Amino acid sequence: MISKNQIKYIRQLELKKFRKRENCFVAEGPKVVGDLMRKYQPIAIYATEEYFKESGVSGQVSGIRNQEIVVTAEELRRISFLQTPQQVLALFPIPEPNYQLSIVNCQLSLALDGIQDPGNLGTIIRIADWFGIDTIYCSEDTADVYNPKVVQATMGSLAHVHIIYTNLLKLFDSLPNDYPIYGTLLDGDDIYQQPLSQEGIIVMGNEGNGISEAVRQRVTHRLLIPNFHQGDSAESLNVAIATAITCSEFRRRGTK
Amino acid sequence: MISKNQIKYIRQLELKKFRKRENCFVAEGPKVVGDLMRKYQPIAIYATEEYFKESGVSGQVSGIRNQEIVVTAEELRRISFLQTPQQVLALFPIPEPNYQLSIVNCQLSLALDGIQDPGNLGTIIRIADWFGIDTIYCSEDTADVYNPKVVQATMGSLAHVHIIYTNLLKLFDSLPNDYPIYGTLLDGDDIYQQPLSQEGIIVMGNEGNGISEAVRQRVTHRLLIPNFHQGDSAESLNVAIATAITCSEFRRRGTK
Repeated sequence: MISKNQIKYIRQLELKKFRKRENCFVAEGPKVVGDLMRKYQPIAIYATEEYFKESGVSGQVSGIRNQEIVVTAEELRRISFLQTPQQVLALFPIPEPNYQLSIVNCQLSLALDGIQDPGNLGTIIRIADWFGIDTIYCSEDTADVYNPKVVQATMGSLAHVHIIYTNLLKLFDSLPNDYPIYGTLLDGDDIYQQPLSQEGIIVMGNEGNGISEAVRQRVTHRLLIPNFHQGDSAESLNVAIATAITCSEFRRRGTK
Repeated sequence: MISKNQIKYIRQLELKKFRKRENCFVAEGPKVVGDLMRKYQPIAIYATEEYFKESGVSGQVSGIRNQEIVVTAEELRRISFLQTPQQVLALFPIPEPNYQLSIVNCQLSLALDGIQDPGNLGTIIRIADWFGIDTIYCSEDTADVYNPKVVQATMGSLAHVHIIYTNLLKLFDSLPNDYPIYGTLLDGDDIYQQPLSQEGIIVMGNEGNGISEAVRQRVTHRLLIPNFHQGDSAESLNVAIATAITCSEFRRRGTK
């Protein structure tokens, strides 16, 4: 049983300012909630009786704020952000960003410069997870990763990738002098032919405008995904697709 | 000015059976309509006065069925399938499938085995266009490419890629004996390490179930995109992302 106030509270978590104030976000479905629970303790779980039985989750939530609430399908529909609600909706605390940068460990990371579309952002997090990239730096004007649409699009990968919102220029300032900053640009060099290292930051730009001018000036290695299309029309690649191709090419080199 | 009947007619084109009966489909926005017009003659154009002025399209549509209709923003909103209508909506004839297969020309092509999501299908067509793959074979249970959502997701690439709905098993039967059929499978071999040719068919499977059993048995080269994720959780790649990585790797080999 769920109260009107609880419904209102959860619905408000669609808004960033409310998520920030309450320091929590919504995740839905057995896969996403299950993956997040392996890493974070939920604040509350709203789920059908079947879910509690089958998942063995019951009793794992504790603490004074924590709650486990059995809901009916109709109640779940009222709190869900999905077109087809999936058994469970949980609230998790927004994790503290961990500034112990992966850079210290000499790894690959991503920097997103103004990604706007929640689906793209979620898909990029999933790609990073697949390719073992465990830190993503987001410019402050990138969409909020705790938006319910982004959380769902990550398919649980949000549990495996650190997300850090920061001023990208300040981030670059903090790097060693010769630290590689890669970016895909229209006037870059063929990514298949360029040397790529297994440490560095790969910058991906905004859907419409690409990498912003100020960030572009800091890119040390300008890459291009070549177009094999024959003809006159100017085509483009979706930013999540470009991210996948770029990450794949970096990792391929590492396995040689 | 647009009549109630015209509005009803256009709205019905959301349905496959109606598109099939009328042999036409809807495209929207200057980019998509413009790209399609370079290849196909529209049956009708509904656009704002500004669009007709700026695009120079006016007068290009002819023939007894053909129409150019100036609409207000409000009228456009009533016929549009987009959340934010974009100046122009046009009806195009569904092109006859061209069975003069690219296979004859010894090229790369894609075969989609039951792709269901319109966004995935549109994105895959855009990826094929980028990588110069000009024919996509779709199994009969793949989503309809002339669905308005798919048309929009292709961003105009539908004008450059031949789409052929067919029984994939019969297609394979028609191929020369040693013709390469590639498929990405969980038990495949590392795509980065396998020989890849510049002719052949690349099969991509359904979002949930992958390549169907019957088609899988016909795959001659089993490929795997390796997962670099450290840890216990089983992750997956979206099918459009997997298509992009696979096509990129094929084309990279061709540029060596």
